[in-house]
Amino acid sequence: MAPSPRDATPRLQDELDECVESVNKTITRLLPETDLAEAHLFEAMRYGVLNGGKRLRPFMVLQSSKLFNVDPARARRVAAAVEFLHCYSLIHDDLPAMDNSDLRRGVPTVHRKYDEATAILSGDALLTLAFEVLSDRETHSDPHVRVELVRKLAIAAGPSGMVGGQMLDLIGEEQEFDLGTISRLQRMKTGHLMAFACEAGAILGKADDAHKKALCNYAYDLGLAFQVTDDILDVDSTSTETGKPANQDDKAGKSTFVSTMGKDQAKMRAEMLVHQAIRHLHVFENRADTLKELAHYVLKRRA
Amino acid sequence: MAPSPRDATPRLQDELDECVESVNKTITRLLPETDLAEAHLFEAMRYGVLNGGKRLRPFMVLQSSKLFNVDPARARRVAAAVEFLHCYSLIHDDLPAMDNSDLRRGVPTVHRKYDEATAILSGDALLTLAFEVLSDRETHSDPHVRVELVRKLAIAAGPSGMVGGQMLDLIGEEQEFDLGTISRLQRMKTGHLMAFACEAGAILGKADDAHKKALCNYAYDLGLAFQVTDDILDVDSTSTETGKPANQDDKAGKSTFVSTMGKDQAKMRAEMLVHQAIRHLHVFENRADTLKELAHYVLKRRA
Repeated sequence: MAPSPRDATPRLQDELDECVESVNKTITRLLPETDLAEAHLFEAMRYGVLNGGKRLRPFMVLQSSKLFNVDPARARRVAAAVEFLHCYSLIHDDLPAMDNSDLRRGVPTVHRKYDEATAILSGDALLTLAFEVLSDRETHSDPHVRVELVRKLAIAAGPSGMVGGQMLDLIGEEQEFDLGTISRLQRMKTGHLMAFACEAGAILGKADDAHKKALCNYAYDLGLAFQVTDDILDVDSTSTETGKPANQDDKAGKSTFVSTMGKDQAKMRAEMLVHQAIRHLHVFENRADTLKELAHYVLKRRA
Repeated sequence: MAPSPRDATPRLQDELDECVESVNKTITRLLPETDLAEAHLFEAMRYGVLNGGKRLRPFMVLQSSKLFNVDPARARRVAAAVEFLHCYSLIHDDLPAMDNSDLRRGVPTVHRKYDEATAILSGDALLTLAFEVLSDRETHSDPHVRVELVRKLAIAAGPSGMVGGQMLDLIGEEQEFDLGTISRLQRMKTGHLMAFACEAGAILGKADDAHKKALCNYAYDLGLAFQVTDDILDVDSTSTETGKPANQDDKAGKSTFVSTMGKDQAKMRAEMLVHQAIRHLHVFENRADTLKELAHYVLKRRA
């Protein structure tokens, strides 16, 4: 069993549950079962995506889309694309040559369930599928919007974004990083994709740059807070709680926020970042309350 | 040293050489050296792309673009994107968990030169960068064109295209395939990307569906001929000639055109496919002579 989010308010929990259900339906529709010879690949892709994730990034897409009255069906497609991209990165990061993880969300990782080749290819396929979904007319009738989604996701996920961040993360096993480099690494590894998820609603709704920027800044601060709490959870939790092996970072010799600034300082930093994230949402007045609640939840989560 | 193409007519050879030079310049511009912490990743990406490839797919993009008077600078960007995608697939296919190849184009493969993690990530980054390049305004001013390029490349490269083909190729090591399945596998693994490369000029030039279809059909037949000759070269050549280990398919127990129909039948089939490919170009009258010469070259090449 994958861990379920805790310490969310009942209202936020309802919205999170609803997002999981609706996005999983879209994902299932975009990844149908097949009896073709390549069925094995599709099965592994589904396994790597439909394994009980919290769908935080899809939730950000749906919530930011609500702010601009975007058609929910379109928002769900973008949410699925973002989750495909996120899950591809998890599948590849878990590989023996990288983090060498046996468990993810409480169940065997893709290369443990199948094999390494299948894990590499299912990750490649999910990454590619994300761009196929975004560029499809069903995602938005305006090609300006579709191509902006593609371009921003590619930048967020590429060598100066997520992939570059993962490279730095591996280099960090051999080399001690200062706080500035850890923050840059995490912004690349996690922040840019979250920023894309939060900006996606504004792109779909053809909002102005000020609104896009506010959502990106919210996401960068929240993403960093998320990573700091992840580092704290990594030293505090058991494998049963987080669904992945405990103390992984320490064992890998990685510099983390906790190893660099200590647990108490790290907690204070996460709190500060969450409050800063929320302040960026003032342009939306009280319409962004759910995103504000999400920020508080990130701080309090235990998994 | 990677092998240089042989048996091309002097005119075709000049055009091939010119393509290598101009596309390599564009690739170098799109993959600049950096002194950032992630320089290692960019270095591996450049190593995986700038290693003396024949640039057949870029050549197809440039030649099809010429048919529709496309701005060469735009064509070169699409050519570079296609090559990024092709090279990512080579880097991942060469990994120990897949084909486990030590040599590619006569030099150590990316995971042998660096390590497996770097090879996985540089492949991921090249795949993502391909979509970044296509979706950039510099590639075409019309977002309809950019988004069509993205969508068609994603479909060609994804689970029902190239990645699915590679999955089938690995399944083929355990399981004997009939000729129909081998042809379908090769169309997925090689054909769709070549079809994209040939159609790209028509997309950039906003050509009609008939012209797009003619170029795709040319590419499918040529792609299959290319694969059949590849299978023949795999049993005939030495490692020095092809720049990769000889007899790889046989050692891996893969069903190939040669193992299924024998070498003589395979040669006849390749010839038939090349003539069929050329016939699809009749809509262009004598303006597509270089693509016709390319088809003959594929048949005669020794590397």
